Amino acid sequence: MLNVSTHPLEIRQLCRNGKLDTPTPGLALGFVQANLVVLPYSLAFEFLLFCQRNPKPCPILDVTEVGDFEPKIIAPGADIRTDLPRYKIFRHGEFIEETTDIKPFWRSDLVAFLIGCSFSFENAMLNSGLSVRHIEENKNVPMYKTNIQCIPTQTFSSPLVVSMRPLPANQVVRAVEVTSRYYKAHGSPVHIGNPEAIGISNLEKPDYGDAVTINHGEIPVFWACGVTTQTAILQAKPELAITHSPGHMFISDLQDESLTF
Amino acid sequence: MLNVSTHPLEIRQLCRNGKLDTPTPGLALGFVQANLVVLPYSLAFEFLLFCQRNPKPCPILDVTEVGDFEPKIIAPGADIRTDLPRYKIFRHGEFIEETTDIKPFWRSDLVAFLIGCSFSFENAMLNSGLSVRHIEENKNVPMYKTNIQCIPTQTFSSPLVVSMRPLPANQVVRAVEVTSRYYKAHGSPVHIGNPEAIGISNLEKPDYGDAVTINHGEIPVFWACGVTTQTAILQAKPELAITHSPGHMFISDLQDESLTF
Repeated sequence: MLNVSTHPLEIRQLCRNGKLDTPTPGLALGFVQANLVVLPYSLAFEFLLFCQRNPKPCPILDVTEVGDFEPKIIAPGADIRTDLPRYKIFRHGEFIEETTDIKPFWRSDLVAFLIGCSFSFENAMLNSGLSVRHIEENKNVPMYKTNIQCIPTQTFSSPLVVSMRPLPANQVVRAVEVTSRYYKAHGSPVHIGNPEAIGISNLEKPDYGDAVTINHGEIPVFWACGVTTQTAILQAKPELAITHSPGHMFISDLQDESLTF
Repeated sequence: MLNVSTHPLEIRQLCRNGKLDTPTPGLALGFVQANLVVLPYSLAFEFLLFCQRNPKPCPILDVTEVGDFEPKIIAPGADIRTDLPRYKIFRHGEFIEETTDIKPFWRSDLVAFLIGCSFSFENAMLNSGLSVRHIEENKNVPMYKTNIQCIPTQTFSSPLVVSMRPLPANQVVRAVEVTSRYYKAHGSPVHIGNPEAIGISNLEKPDYGDAVTINHGEIPVFWACGVTTQTAILQAKPELAITHSPGHMFISDLQDESLTF
């Protein structure tokens, strides 16, 4: 029964009731999907500061109060412990397990960060008639570690991770215009054209996600990617960290347009 | 010798050496001036979260590491303990004293927040041929508490404080366009036209700053104001808080244009 017009509240309730544990692309089209990061309060200032210093990969949409599991700003009434399809649990930077409910892991000192995701600007690209190759090919977007360093804090540092979408040369400028508006969903590209200039040696071997077809004459265009937050967390090795599983996002009540200038 | 083209570094050194303790409007024109808030680390996450939730009154430009007094992002080499002309010290929400050097108050658990200021967009307004009445009348900008509540955190809450600039009706739309770009310097107006709609009963009696002339047919236009951070701090009554003295800002190495989309 799920389709593009299923309301976010309904999707969250299906997750909560154990009836939905699949990836979320294409669900509740037009509503903002978000990355989730949960950390102990002892790291909350540092992580918020890392996001504030690196707003392109880490655009903050909501941060819960200490111990609170309701993202009051982007989805009042939601419960981030149950309302995502799947979660990953990390201890000291090591992946421990994947789960569909983090209530057993919840503690009164945890803080949840909800971070913008590229789905918002991809919808805008599609609405503008621009190619989004991994959607055309029904794949995950290809993602690469770059040689661009995020501005670090004492605890958190990471290379910038980028996603790549190849575009016909005559669509590149329009893609910059369209995505620039979505500053809370990674915004404008960080690089256009030369992968080696940002430390990517082989587009056919992404560090995350799937390789996609690049047709003759197409230009690879690179956007900051929310996976950067996960890299930063793994480097910091917190005693506990919880994230969404890749592609299994939190679906908020915000509309995509609310992430624009 | 000070004038509009004095370099920020020179101004900061004059402050550091005790040779400048006057207001900073008009100095180092084109360089970003910033509000300063210093708080203990125990409140740093909550305050950063308050700013993140209320980016129009509280656009964060830089946050120092715990105990560090160098704003590495906006002015490498600067020392926020000495490089502003004047500071105000608050204990438990009470004003204690004004000083030109906060070294005696510095502690290893303090965090400094540097926050965008309206001077940046006022320069842009002047460059666009728009009226900035308090500059024309050589006064401080009029500021008012509104009935708009900021999004609170557990510790910090405040009514939104706004600054007001009256404009001829045919300049209002252009003023929105020009200031909107400066999203890290309060950005677009929060209200146009009807002071009572936002809880302001008498424009001639500002809560802070000076009343300015409003000519027949002019429209009052209201922008979010950095004084909101000070109201939030006074309400939270932290055991120690340090701010710049009104109008005595930190002058960074950033150019105004860096605060735009």
